[in-house]
Amino acid sequence: MKLGKTGNNKFLKQFNETSLLELIRTNKQVSKADLAQLSGLSPTASGSIVSNLLEKGYIREAGIGISKGGRRPNLYELNPKSYYSIGVDIDVDFIRFILMDITGNVEYRDKISSGFDQSVPESIGAVVEKVRQIVRLNNISEDRLLGVGISVPGMVENKTHEIIFAPNLGWEQVNLEHMMSGVGDFPIYVDNEAMCSAICENWLGCCTEQKDFVCINMKSGIGSSIFAGGNLYRGCSGSAGEIGHIMVDHNGPKCACGNYGCLETLVSSKSMVEKARRLVRQGLITDFSETLDINSINSIDDIVGAIKSGNEAARVIFVEAAGYLGLALANLINTINPSRIVLGKELVKFSEDILEHLRNIALAKALRYPASRVEILLSELGEDTSALGAAIIPLKKLFGYRL
Amino acid sequence: MKLGKTGNNKFLKQFNETSLLELIRTNKQVSKADLAQLSGLSPTASGSIVSNLLEKGYIREAGIGISKGGRRPNLYELNPKSYYSIGVDIDVDFIRFILMDITGNVEYRDKISSGFDQSVPESIGAVVEKVRQIVRLNNISEDRLLGVGISVPGMVENKTHEIIFAPNLGWEQVNLEHMMSGVGDFPIYVDNEAMCSAICENWLGCCTEQKDFVCINMKSGIGSSIFAGGNLYRGCSGSAGEIGHIMVDHNGPKCACGNYGCLETLVSSKSMVEKARRLVRQGLITDFSETLDINSINSIDDIVGAIKSGNEAARVIFVEAAGYLGLALANLINTINPSRIVLGKELVKFSEDILEHLRNIALAKALRYPASRVEILLSELGEDTSALGAAIIPLKKLFGYRL
Repeated sequence: MKLGKTGNNKFLKQFNETSLLELIRTNKQVSKADLAQLSGLSPTASGSIVSNLLEKGYIREAGIGISKGGRRPNLYELNPKSYYSIGVDIDVDFIRFILMDITGNVEYRDKISSGFDQSVPESIGAVVEKVRQIVRLNNISEDRLLGVGISVPGMVENKTHEIIFAPNLGWEQVNLEHMMSGVGDFPIYVDNEAMCSAICENWLGCCTEQKDFVCINMKSGIGSSIFAGGNLYRGCSGSAGEIGHIMVDHNGPKCACGNYGCLETLVSSKSMVEKARRLVRQGLITDFSETLDINSINSIDDIVGAIKSGNEAARVIFVEAAGYLGLALANLINTINPSRIVLGKELVKFSEDILEHLRNIALAKALRYPASRVEILLSELGEDTSALGAAIIPLKKLFGYRL
Repeated sequence: MKLGKTGNNKFLKQFNETSLLELIRTNKQVSKADLAQLSGLSPTASGSIVSNLLEKGYIREAGIGISKGGRRPNLYELNPKSYYSIGVDIDVDFIRFILMDITGNVEYRDKISSGFDQSVPESIGAVVEKVRQIVRLNNISEDRLLGVGISVPGMVENKTHEIIFAPNLGWEQVNLEHMMSGVGDFPIYVDNEAMCSAICENWLGCCTEQKDFVCINMKSGIGSSIFAGGNLYRGCSGSAGEIGHIMVDHNGPKCACGNYGCLETLVSSKSMVEKARRLVRQGLITDFSETLDINSINSIDDIVGAIKSGNEAARVIFVEAAGYLGLALANLINTINPSRIVLGKELVKFSEDILEHLRNIALAKALRYPASRVEILLSELGEDTSALGAAIIPLKKLFGYRL
């Protein structure tokens, strides 16, 4: 990295400050001399920026380093609990909240029920109230809050950041940034839930070293996000990655979008629960949760429970879903040529043998060459990836990343 | 654009020179003062680079501009016929050659028969001989040849540029850059044919203003290339865009890749010609090219001829292919969210009503929002897009683009 010379240029000064902060983040502990060398700035310029960052509290001293000739240098590192960011994941069942500090440490975590029957303003009111509570409870002064990132299960327009359509929330054309602007004097960022998961996996999950990867999230629907050449790929208007409506079976069930056999009608918590209920109704699953009551099957967990108790028909629900998902992954492997595909949200409930079945189909149906270059794995961050990713958005902004 | 200050730094000097050259290209005719303003360089630095570019012959004086106070300034523009680049498109039937000058003008165009039975070294020998002939015929001194770009219908590895597999040529693990290195003292670039078409459409075709678009080429096979955020997206190992083996029909024919119902088995010149022959054999197309001889159906053109003479069964071949391609495009629209999809090579033979049918299916099967943002259109550059794109590669390199 070769940075510009500082001077009276405010933009350049900001750019150099951001770049040094990012060097401190990625190198963990560094001396002023290291920073001058890494940035290409003069020792004086780099020293002055370090003083500035210390004064603002972004960084702190971190002991004494090894001498490279001369006096042993002071080391600097990011200052934990100095600045914060909040991530909110609005989903159908719950709204999740994460408070993260500048180092990426999670300081606080909570969730509230989504209130399915609430109007959009009521839901947003609940989010605003909770954000205020988190700020209050954790004694965060407003100038130390870098921003609030909000994840939504829907398409978000590239430029206006308006939520175009979030079918499972029933939201259409909602400008959350605008509606939330009253919450305080910090920026609000809105992004799609799968995009947030990819941001999370790339910042602190299993894709920190990957430039080309895909995240697949399954909940009531199924969606994906694509990292292309080191950046999130959004498409021309923000909806890239909407694989839920890829057709995987001509003769498949009718989808809410009007077509037949969309991936989402075959692989989603909702469709799998519906299928389980249908099987119970037909008498094919009789020992479901030790009861015949269809109403006791409310979530993927109930099906997982039945599989664990040895119910073969319940297991077939997962096997079939994995088969269809495998076809969709094969298409993605051919089209995107990713190095990793990370399965998140309720897909982490796939057991090892189901996952193996999924891998077999995806790799057999894809072309040999891209299939040989891809790893298919489960996210290790469970259901929180979207809330975590949303919290990372203001951090990425601070460290000079393009969003 | 803010460029670095020139000085003794050779790299920076090269960077500034390249950037000014690109400013001259994109602004057509500019003065030294314009260039200083556009680049952020000092008038002295920018003037010195202009002198350098004039001396090397890349640019020339282009008359006198309008005064913005003071003397009317000299204008500069790219110098036609000063530097050249050669594009080669190796395909199953022909090898096409393009000689292009620095301004993008095609100076010479030729094709030779591919020599289907030739070994790889024989084919490459024919290419080398023809490249030498073009250089000789056009009196190009070697130091004025920026390089040779070669397009191949196969997967090209990102880093080694080795051709991993070109099924329709029967080539596997061929290092063309290496094998061609003896041809002269200029660089050789190898790229996939669909990637070359996208480079072409973005440099001088219908996508010069597009950042996110997809090119689809149909010949013996079918392939695509994706421009993502203004750059060609190659995937983790160079094979992104291989849509030929996306499954579009569970019950479709067996494909050479081992799977069933791949797009390529239903939409490609080869599969469509085979289908026409099958229909003739079954007596369903009786007036084909005014003969019943199956062997007279050798290309898409023969089917087009039959359609033009009013043969309905022949038309159905195109309608069905358009239907399957429409499904694949719907998947791409959902996954990639492109602003344009450009149909090239033999797809330009689709008549307006077939194209309309294709558009209807693609847009109806895709999600409403991304469908509303995409245009599906035919390439206006016919069969030459890959040869043109290959010739543009050395130019892009000269103007400082990432390949």
